[in-house]
Amino acid sequence: MKRSIAGAAATVSRRPRIADVRVTPIAFRDPPLLNVVGVHEPWALRSIIEVETDDGRIGLGESYGDLETLGNLARAQKQLVGLDPFDLNGLTAKVYEAVAGQPFAGQTFPPAGDKALASAIAAFEVAFLDLQGQIADRPLYEILGGAVRERVAYSAYLFYKFKQHKDDPGYPPDDWGEALTHAQMVDQTRRMVEEYGFGSIKLKAGVFEPDFEIDTLRAIAKAFPGYPLRIDPNGGWSVETTRRLMPKFEGLLEYLEDPVNSLDEAGEVAKFSTLPLATNMVTVAFGHIPKTVRLNAMQVILTDHHYWGGLRATQTLAHYGRTFGLGISMHSNSHLGISLAAMTHVGLTIPNLAYACDTHYPWQVEEVVEGGRANFRFEKGALAPPPGPGLGVRLDRAALATLHKQYVDCGIRKRDDAKEMRKYRPDWKSDRPRF
Amino acid sequence: MKRSIAGAAATVSRRPRIADVRVTPIAFRDPPLLNVVGVHEPWALRSIIEVETDDGRIGLGESYGDLETLGNLARAQKQLVGLDPFDLNGLTAKVYEAVAGQPFAGQTFPPAGDKALASAIAAFEVAFLDLQGQIADRPLYEILGGAVRERVAYSAYLFYKFKQHKDDPGYPPDDWGEALTHAQMVDQTRRMVEEYGFGSIKLKAGVFEPDFEIDTLRAIAKAFPGYPLRIDPNGGWSVETTRRLMPKFEGLLEYLEDPVNSLDEAGEVAKFSTLPLATNMVTVAFGHIPKTVRLNAMQVILTDHHYWGGLRATQTLAHYGRTFGLGISMHSNSHLGISLAAMTHVGLTIPNLAYACDTHYPWQVEEVVEGGRANFRFEKGALAPPPGPGLGVRLDRAALATLHKQYVDCGIRKRDDAKEMRKYRPDWKSDRPRF
Repeated sequence: MKRSIAGAAATVSRRPRIADVRVTPIAFRDPPLLNVVGVHEPWALRSIIEVETDDGRIGLGESYGDLETLGNLARAQKQLVGLDPFDLNGLTAKVYEAVAGQPFAGQTFPPAGDKALASAIAAFEVAFLDLQGQIADRPLYEILGGAVRERVAYSAYLFYKFKQHKDDPGYPPDDWGEALTHAQMVDQTRRMVEEYGFGSIKLKAGVFEPDFEIDTLRAIAKAFPGYPLRIDPNGGWSVETTRRLMPKFEGLLEYLEDPVNSLDEAGEVAKFSTLPLATNMVTVAFGHIPKTVRLNAMQVILTDHHYWGGLRATQTLAHYGRTFGLGISMHSNSHLGISLAAMTHVGLTIPNLAYACDTHYPWQVEEVVEGGRANFRFEKGALAPPPGPGLGVRLDRAALATLHKQYVDCGIRKRDDAKEMRKYRPDWKSDRPRF
Repeated sequence: MKRSIAGAAATVSRRPRIADVRVTPIAFRDPPLLNVVGVHEPWALRSIIEVETDDGRIGLGESYGDLETLGNLARAQKQLVGLDPFDLNGLTAKVYEAVAGQPFAGQTFPPAGDKALASAIAAFEVAFLDLQGQIADRPLYEILGGAVRERVAYSAYLFYKFKQHKDDPGYPPDDWGEALTHAQMVDQTRRMVEEYGFGSIKLKAGVFEPDFEIDTLRAIAKAFPGYPLRIDPNGGWSVETTRRLMPKFEGLLEYLEDPVNSLDEAGEVAKFSTLPLATNMVTVAFGHIPKTVRLNAMQVILTDHHYWGGLRATQTLAHYGRTFGLGISMHSNSHLGISLAAMTHVGLTIPNLAYACDTHYPWQVEEVVEGGRANFRFEKGALAPPPGPGLGVRLDRAALATLHKQYVDCGIRKRDDAKEMRKYRPDWKSDRPRF
C-alpha cells in the first residue's frame, strides 16, 4: 500500500492480516452413482482451505481436490500472507499472478473462459469472506448484502446407482441400495422427499437410453404429481437425439439441463427447444457469456461459486441474469458442509434465485465441520445457514485428519469415473454424445 | 426477519439499526457553463442524504436535487427505518416497493431502463456503505473489496462559458472569465492543468458548429501535446454530421462521447466509427446493456454511481465491461464532496477503470463537508479519498443550512439550462440534433 492509502488507513484501527494459509486434500466416502461418464469412485476428493489471521481467526473454504486445483492453490497460497481479509481485489490480483502469470488489471475476461483461475480465487475468497464475517461479528449473508429469503430451497438429486462399489473400499455399502429400475428410482425419490422434504426433483441422466430415462421420469411424475422435474444428461445427447426427445418433455420438465456438450450445439437446440435450457457445462465462465447471449443458447444459468470465482462473483452472475433475462439456479458437485454453508449463505442473498438448488449432500455421510451433519437441517427441502458469524461452521480437526488420511491412503488423485466404470464393463467408453 | 435467520443473528452481537433518514435539498453556486441544451443556471441543485443509526452514527449520500428525485427519496426514506445498514438487499427491496410499487424479487431489469429507481437506491446505498465503513472502522474502499490503485485519475473538464450570469445571482462572478474563443479555451485548459495537474482533457461540446469546436481541440492539442483528448457534444449531432466529422478526429481523440442522441443512432455511428464510442446518455441502465451489446454500439461505458444504482452496481457494471470488452470510465454532474469521495472510493476498487474520470469539481466553490474543499487535494490530476472510516467526510451543518437556504431562496426546482439560455438568446431552442 502506498502513501495516500496508508494515510487513510492510519486513522482507523489496526486490521488483522493473513498470517498462514493451509490447504489439506481430503477424500470422503462416495456411493457408486452413475452418470454419462461412468460411475463415482469410492472416494470423492476435495480440498479444505484454512486462512488464518495474525490474531488467530481461521476462515474456511472448500474446493476441488484434483491435482490441478491443488497445484493452483499451492502456487497462490503463500502469496496471500500479509493481505487484509477484506482485500478481495488483493486476493484476486495475487491469484492472477500466481496461477495465470498475468495482472488482474487486464481489460477483459478471455472468451475461452478462465475456470481454473476463477476456481482458485473462489477457494480462498470464501475463506476471506468467512473471516470478514467473523471480524464484523455477522453471518456471512449479511456481509454479502443481506438475506432476501429465510431459507434456500434445494432439490432432490436422483442418481441411477449400483448397490455397491466393485472393489471393497474398506467401508460398508451405502444404505440406498441399487437404483437401476423405474421402481427403484421411485423408491429413491420417496426417501429423498421423506427425509429432506425436497419439493423439486432432478434426475442425473445420460446413463441409459433416453427413452428409458424418460420413462423413469414419468414414473416419478406419477408418484409425485406436481413436483417440478428436471433431467441432466451431462451433454450425453446429440442435437438430433434432443430434437427427437423434445416433444416427450413437454408438460413433464421444469427445464432441460445440458442435453448437448458444446455451446454451439446448445445454440442449435435452443432454436427448436420448447423448454428452458439450463447449463453448468457449456457456459461456465464470464468469458462465455457474450456468445451465450448472442446465440440465445440458454435460459437458465446454474451458478456455482466454486468455479465462477466465489460468492461475490455468484452474485454478479445472478445480476447478469436479471439483465439478460436468464433464470438463476445452482449447481453442485460432491461436497461437504463448508461448501453447503457457503452455497446457503449466498443463496439467501440472490433476489432472482428462481429454482431449487442442486446439492449432493444427501449422498454423503462424512463431515469435516464441528457438529457434523447436524449443522444442516433441511426443512421442506430448504436450509438456513448454520448460526454464528461468517460461514457459521468450524473445522473438526480430528475429522480433517481422518479425511486427509483417507486421501493419502485411497490413492485417487484425479476423479476418473470412466476408469471406475471399466471395472464393471471393461469395454466402457465415455465418448459424448453417447446417444 | 423470520425465525431461521433470527436464529443466526441471535448468536452475534446486536447490530445498529437505521433510526432516521433525512434528505435536505441544497443549491450551490454554479458558473454559466455552456452545453448543447443551453447554459448552467446560477444555482445547481443537489440533495444531501443523512442515514442515522440508533447508536448515533450518520452515513452520508449526495444525489440529484430535482423534484422527481426528491419525491422518490421522500417516498422511500421512512421505509428504511429499522433496517440494518449492511442490508443492501433490504434497502433495495424497500426502494423498489416505495418508488416503483413492485417487488425486488423480479426476474429481469426492464429493457427501457430504470434510471429513476436506480438513482433512488444509489442515494441511500452510499449512506449505508458509509455506515458500514464506520461500523467496521474501515475506509469505504476496503468495504468495497480493496484498492487496486492508490489514487483515482480525473480529467480536466473544459466548458465554453460566459463571463457571468445574465441576471445577478447575488454573488460575484466566478474567476474563470469568458471562454468562447480558442485562445480562451487554451487558457482555461492551462489553469486546469496547472492547478490540478490533470493529464487528460475533455471538452463539453455541442455548443458551436462542430468545426469550430474541433479547431478548439486542435488549439488545445497544440498547446498540450500528448494529453489524451475527448469531446462530448451530448448527443447534439446527427449521424450524418458525425460521419462527416469522423476523419477529423483521427489522431486527435482518445474516444468520442455521445455524438448522437439514441442507442439506435449510436449503433449506426459504430458501423463507421474509427474511434471508441463512449456514453453516459444512451446506455444508462442495466436494461440497456443487451441492446448495446447486440448493436456493438459502444466501446466505453461511463459509470456513474448516482444513476447506475450505487457503488456496488458501479463495480458490477465494470465487471460487465470485462465480460463484453467495454472500456470503463466515469461520468459526472455538478457535485460536491460527498459525491467526490464516493466516486474516488469506488474508483480505487475497479480493476478495469481505464480512463481518467470526469468531475465538475473544479467549477464549484462551495462545500457541504467539514473542512471544505481542502479534503480533496488533486496530485497530478489524481485524488486519494479523504482519510478515515467510511467515506471519510462529515457534514458541516452550518454549510448545510446555508446551502439549504440557497435552495429555498433561489426558486429553482428543476434544472432548465434551455430556459436560462433564453435570457441571452430569446429564440434559443434545445432540439437535438442541433448540428
